[in-house]
Amino acid sequence: MPKELTTRAEDYAQWYNDLVIKADLAEYSAVRGCMVIKPTGYAIWENMQSVLNKMFKATGHSNAYFPLFIPKSFFSREASHVEGFAKECAVVTHYRLKTDPVNGGVMVDETAKLEEELIIRPTSETIIWNSFKNWIHSYRDLPLLINQWANIVRWEMRTRLFLRTAEFLWQEGHTAHATREEAVEETLKIINLYADFAENWIALPVIKGRKTESERFAGAIDTYSIEAMMQDGKALQSGTSHFLGQNFAKAFDVQFTNQEGKLDWVWATSWGVSTRLMGALIMGHSDDNGLIIPPRLAPLQVVIIPIYKSKEELGQVGETAVRIKKALEDNDISVKYDDRDTHKPGWKFADYELKGVPVRLAIGPRDIKNQTVEVARRDTLEKWSLPQENIVANIKDLLVDIQNNLYRRALEFRNKNTFVTDNYEEFKDIIMNRGGFVLAHWDGTSETETRIKEETKATIRCIPLENESGEGKCIYTGKPSSQRVIFAKAY
Amino acid sequence: MPKELTTRAEDYAQWYNDLVIKADLAEYSAVRGCMVIKPTGYAIWENMQSVLNKMFKATGHSNAYFPLFIPKSFFSREASHVEGFAKECAVVTHYRLKTDPVNGGVMVDETAKLEEELIIRPTSETIIWNSFKNWIHSYRDLPLLINQWANIVRWEMRTRLFLRTAEFLWQEGHTAHATREEAVEETLKIINLYADFAENWIALPVIKGRKTESERFAGAIDTYSIEAMMQDGKALQSGTSHFLGQNFAKAFDVQFTNQEGKLDWVWATSWGVSTRLMGALIMGHSDDNGLIIPPRLAPLQVVIIPIYKSKEELGQVGETAVRIKKALEDNDISVKYDDRDTHKPGWKFADYELKGVPVRLAIGPRDIKNQTVEVARRDTLEKWSLPQENIVANIKDLLVDIQNNLYRRALEFRNKNTFVTDNYEEFKDIIMNRGGFVLAHWDGTSETETRIKEETKATIRCIPLENESGEGKCIYTGKPSSQRVIFAKAY
Repeated sequence: MPKELTTRAEDYAQWYNDLVIKADLAEYSAVRGCMVIKPTGYAIWENMQSVLNKMFKATGHSNAYFPLFIPKSFFSREASHVEGFAKECAVVTHYRLKTDPVNGGVMVDETAKLEEELIIRPTSETIIWNSFKNWIHSYRDLPLLINQWANIVRWEMRTRLFLRTAEFLWQEGHTAHATREEAVEETLKIINLYADFAENWIALPVIKGRKTESERFAGAIDTYSIEAMMQDGKALQSGTSHFLGQNFAKAFDVQFTNQEGKLDWVWATSWGVSTRLMGALIMGHSDDNGLIIPPRLAPLQVVIIPIYKSKEELGQVGETAVRIKKALEDNDISVKYDDRDTHKPGWKFADYELKGVPVRLAIGPRDIKNQTVEVARRDTLEKWSLPQENIVANIKDLLVDIQNNLYRRALEFRNKNTFVTDNYEEFKDIIMNRGGFVLAHWDGTSETETRIKEETKATIRCIPLENESGEGKCIYTGKPSSQRVIFAKAY
Repeated sequence: MPKELTTRAEDYAQWYNDLVIKADLAEYSAVRGCMVIKPTGYAIWENMQSVLNKMFKATGHSNAYFPLFIPKSFFSREASHVEGFAKECAVVTHYRLKTDPVNGGVMVDETAKLEEELIIRPTSETIIWNSFKNWIHSYRDLPLLINQWANIVRWEMRTRLFLRTAEFLWQEGHTAHATREEAVEETLKIINLYADFAENWIALPVIKGRKTESERFAGAIDTYSIEAMMQDGKALQSGTSHFLGQNFAKAFDVQFTNQEGKLDWVWATSWGVSTRLMGALIMGHSDDNGLIIPPRLAPLQVVIIPIYKSKEELGQVGETAVRIKKALEDNDISVKYDDRDTHKPGWKFADYELKGVPVRLAIGPRDIKNQTVEVARRDTLEKWSLPQENIVANIKDLLVDIQNNLYRRALEFRNKNTFVTDNYEEFKDIIMNRGGFVLAHWDGTSETETRIKEETKATIRCIPLENESGEGKCIYTGKPSSQRVIFAKAY
């Protein structure tokens, strides 16, 4: 049998870690907190990139590439920005090694010390706005809609594969606008785009909302996020979009001549999703048998496994398998025919379950006789027999059905684990003993937010954009509140 | 008029720099030697990536991602590897900044010093083979065919946009094999793949060959390269493929059980092409009017410009333009209809010439009357009138013709500037006064290679794989030589 997983009930965190490792998605490297993304995991990430790239281009954005390094002095220009990131910066101080005459090997060459230290980008607002200064002169140069795919370093002390690593991969959008309204519109357009991606591709329902001041991006006027619920009831912030006002334009002196011929500072946004989305995909759907990949993002959508005793049987089965494989591939479905003779069918079944392939087809001598195939769907683990006729249309429908079912299941789970309460004792009981999202009123102050966090470990995930709750009284202080917000423990 | 370029005859290096900047491909950043790749340039790089990715996948390779950081001690494990790269390594020594109480801003927090310094990858053999150690146990795990798209840092003292920058983008393949023969075969397969890409996509003829010992990759047994001739007669090494023998397997203790059940060290290759290919594309084809992009890699293949005096004329012209645009797009040709009223047609003509768009269509009232369009091809600057009927087929053919013509032109140029000589005085005269490639006999020693380099600045670019020259005597020492090699000045 392929390697077994810890079950979710036993230890959810250990289950996740086991799954990432045993499904061959990623592993830790020799460098503290940095991961290796293995081919199986990277292929899912490439599919995410490809879809997002199309969405960004369809909304008018262009890709570009800016330096990995940020001069230390750039960092200090926007006060709250530097404060937010200074404590987790990897710093380059030298640019040469030399032979170590005492210990052997190499050592830092102290004569090659940089005049100004370079920070490995923890986010690129500063280096990008320093370029934008030369690109923007007039309202005709706006809007400027740029995206970058890049690696990022934040020296986190506690790391978890995909969810929080010292180095991670992401995309960061950086846009410049002539007016406040346009920049706000862009910020919201992107948070909607991210929600679309999460729901229609990762098959995870998300709540779009505004962050409170304490959870805002360092340097932003407003941060919006999408929040997804994992199977342990915790929230995973899966994407953020920031309205930066004129903060970075002022810090890097980026002014433009507007239509009236007057100088004004440029308005900005930035936004990003990262390899953290891999964590959302994995934790959002998978079960104790392994990974479940939504069909629309699965690098391999269908696997065909031959059942046979003799070489002759394999020959017959193989012929049908190859024909079905080709028919599916001609319809843009990715298929693998696994006829390795080094493993038994049962082992392969379990292995593809572990790896999350959405649909498994098994073909044996009886299927050849009956003109059928055995179909198994990964999400429900159901099996049934299907005629070979119309197999393409049936598999197509099945993939759509699995995609929809994953979404529905995740939505049901979230609904079942979302609570509305006006009673702080009940609030604490839910957060601490049940888990899930709690919709509660809050008086809008950081002080109350901090106290609740200290007492329960729950944070305000967001102030939902789609608000149907109406006014009420703060669950903690009883002071007036304009709408319910979402409290939860979070990754 | 759009910005003017320095001409090639005036100052080739300045022409190149002007072109990169004025065609909006890239620019220097605030960080010494690091560039910003602008959207226009990045779109060409994305096309290159996309084609190469398909070629790698078609030959069985999978993408993965390994850490940016390499622990200093890993570096010393392969002696010639560390010697080759130690002098140009960016080194991370600290992981935190703090407020600077004296000068304001931030400073390095000395209490957050890494126990072991981290090197920003100048190439990833060491960190990857450290992972391969856990991935490879038996011959069943081989071959392992991995590719990575990544950013790389080599602290070069003299930099030029795309050709040599402190940070650059590349792909690096790293493969592991059970036998020497298989690894050698992979090394050669990739150098052929690179040549295919250079010739059929970048439209540049290249010479495939083996490097001499002094030009070999640090840690390789053999390095193969493709060498292209630029318009100043200099060589540009455009891709390399290395046979690494068992060097890295030994350094990182990667053994496997072979089919006979015995332990053996794994055989390795590595290979890469980088954003340097952008330099090859630019310098290989462009002229004094600007960039020339081979159609197969052009993000924008056709631009349509309306010629009009009145709004009514623009309306008529626009209708035809949009119809032609759609017809071309339906045939996978990328098209832009530029109806901006902020610039005159003449300005647009010159601007798209500068930016290298392969085909320009102009449509005016007379074309509407005659059911024609005016076509201009970027490579030859020829213009003619074409009936609107069959426009799609004609433009398709034209794009193919431009692609082929660019290749043919580059090949003719190379042929005209490649010389065969057995006379060292003539050799020196060609290298120092004419430029180009010189095919000459060499006695195979590093000593002779060094002397020739000191006297002429020419290096041995490669020992061609396709060798028709036969034996002879070294041009410098008169000692026996088994074949001619290529000497040239190089970027």
